[in-house]
Amino acid sequence: MLYPETINNLIECYKKLPGIGEKSAERMALYTLEMDQEIIDLFVQSLADAKTKIKRCKICNNFSQEDICPICRNEGRNHQVICVVEEPKNVIQFEKIGSYKGLYHVLDGLISPLENINPEDLNITSLIKRIDEEKIKEVIIAVKPSIEGETTALYISKMLEDKDVIISKIAHGVPLGADMDYVDALTLELALEERKNITSHEE
Amino acid sequence: MLYPETINNLIECYKKLPGIGEKSAERMALYTLEMDQEIIDLFVQSLADAKTKIKRCKICNNFSQEDICPICRNEGRNHQVICVVEEPKNVIQFEKIGSYKGLYHVLDGLISPLENINPEDLNITSLIKRIDEEKIKEVIIAVKPSIEGETTALYISKMLEDKDVIISKIAHGVPLGADMDYVDALTLELALEERKNITSHEE
Repeated sequence: MLYPETINNLIECYKKLPGIGEKSAERMALYTLEMDQEIIDLFVQSLADAKTKIKRCKICNNFSQEDICPICRNEGRNHQVICVVEEPKNVIQFEKIGSYKGLYHVLDGLISPLENINPEDLNITSLIKRIDEEKIKEVIIAVKPSIEGETTALYISKMLEDKDVIISKIAHGVPLGADMDYVDALTLELALEERKNITSHEE
Repeated sequence: MLYPETINNLIECYKKLPGIGEKSAERMALYTLEMDQEIIDLFVQSLADAKTKIKRCKICNNFSQEDICPICRNEGRNHQVICVVEEPKNVIQFEKIGSYKGLYHVLDGLISPLENINPEDLNITSLIKRIDEEKIKEVIIAVKPSIEGETTALYISKMLEDKDVIISKIAHGVPLGADMDYVDALTLELALEERKNITSHEE
């Protein structure tokens, strides 16, 4: 206990955050002493609210401060399309594009037998219920192209195969602006398999 | 405002910390939602206390939760030696060694005409007062070997030259375990100048 207790506690708390080691935590704690009271007050309030105010939307399972999130409540959006994602963070990624106007469904993970995550641990039942009850025309599966992602996508499409709904998957391939030197073999293989005909004349 | 307000506020607060950008702040905020309530409570309490409970020791100016810090209060320490450091953080560095048993004096900066930091902005008057009032035998100046550090060391030794006190400066040179390839020229020059005679026979 070299620092006063409050500073030691702050260091311990900062150290709990992802990617923060002893040195960074110490730097942050000492910096905190110099922060404006306003910021400290906001920090204290947000931390105190983090667990209590942030709930999950009862429809799509995204983070929300109300029972139903602003996206699900928004009448201006296309309520016939659901984009299925792994985490709430992914919703923000799609929202940042700005062009997607449909709804979301947050699975809260991907099927992974190795980590003992089974379909019943994910929000798949609620997705099927939505398709039965809402007028959904298309389900876009937007999970990462890993073994877990592919397994989850396959499972969901199996579960939905007798429903009257289009199931699609986001395209995988070489990302825009990527240097070809750094594209891995698997991505390149996928990009080759999923190649698009760009012939301008008719065949 | 893509996340609920509480999460956005948390992201903003984390972003204020040194070395934390948008992405890390987002990761930390989402991680916070999963933290144990216990840790959150400690975090909230420590943040709230940071500005109110942490004071400066009235003698040495180190961080303290009481008027006089535990080091100054410790009768078991050598009250005849003062180690002069730049910041409270440096006190911890010396305390970690474990072998130094004297007292400290935290300057809260170094003289820097370029940054408009003058001697009167530092806790130098209180240091001189201590030397006049306490029975100090030695003042060890332990600031970094930069232009600011050297200027500060010179200034303090000038101010103390008519006092009956030994003034010393910590040694500078090649650090232990350093690869000679990576030691800069200035450090090497200093190490050469301050070389020690290790001849075993008497001259």
